[in-house]
Amino acid sequence: MSRLDSFIRRLEAQRACLGRAAEQIERVPGAVLELGLGNGRTYDHLREILPDRDIYVCERHVDAHPDCTPPADLLLLGDMFDTLPAALSLKGRVALAHFDAGSGDAAANRDLAAGLRPLILPLLCAGAVLASQEPMDGAGLEPLPLPDGIRPGRYYLYRRV
Amino acid sequence: MSRLDSFIRRLEAQRACLGRAAEQIERVPGAVLELGLGNGRTYDHLREILPDRDIYVCERHVDAHPDCTPPADLLLLGDMFDTLPAALSLKGRVALAHFDAGSGDAAANRDLAAGLRPLILPLLCAGAVLASQEPMDGAGLEPLPLPDGIRPGRYYLYRRV
Repeated sequence: MSRLDSFIRRLEAQRACLGRAAEQIERVPGAVLELGLGNGRTYDHLREILPDRDIYVCERHVDAHPDCTPPADLLLLGDMFDTLPAALSLKGRVALAHFDAGSGDAAANRDLAAGLRPLILPLLCAGAVLASQEPMDGAGLEPLPLPDGIRPGRYYLYRRV
Repeated sequence: MSRLDSFIRRLEAQRACLGRAAEQIERVPGAVLELGLGNGRTYDHLREILPDRDIYVCERHVDAHPDCTPPADLLLLGDMFDTLPAALSLKGRVALAHFDAGSGDAAANRDLAAGLRPLILPLLCAGAVLASQEPMDGAGLEPLPLPDGIRPGRYYLYRRV
């Protein structure tokens, strides 16, 4: 499979998993947390599928398309290892968190996911869903089945228990 | 449609158009010319669908995944406005050229395509196919129908006449 094929599959998996996550939290009130803005493509998609939710966004330096820049009061600007522990008002209030490191360095992405996991967990309310490009298995997170057609390991869905 | 949806459709259109272009040049001997390497995703795809062709690549600074770095003798390193006119050995020898500016600035992409058009045209052999994210209509290039399901304007295919 070419890198183009693989990239398309990853984006399709991301879209399908976010769609599934949005369905799963239909009866779970709370905010959305996008861990990394990047060019704002996924943020824009979250806005579209979850128009009535507050979508908080972590980002070190905002460099997204102007249309995809979050409002200042929903932006956690800085290093996530600083901003997540300081986001006390979000504690137990997040119904959906999404993490996609977006770098091509698989080992670095896994390390980042492992480091962020204990910072994300306290923000999630009971029944919240975490969608992640990297595995975040462990206590407090129950793996959810992936949408049809998505190969296990291409994306991950968890429910906060 | 969200930016994620739109991006996936553009990549799918690119893949479908490259596949169609590869079929169209089955009986047209000649090299492939990738106008811009970027991260090497499309180059990798071209290598996969056209394994027996020499694939020349234009790039200012190579910053692709190491697996997707072209061999030095097929690399036209520098500004395309310098390297294409100097590529005398490719004159009339290219059977498939692909251009995807890859920037989010639509006006700049169109200007770049218009500027490159007269530099690409002399490199194409009779019957060659040009696949482009931007329109390159005009003398010497006959528009080809797009693969099924690809919206007109999302990608462009031309035959050198």
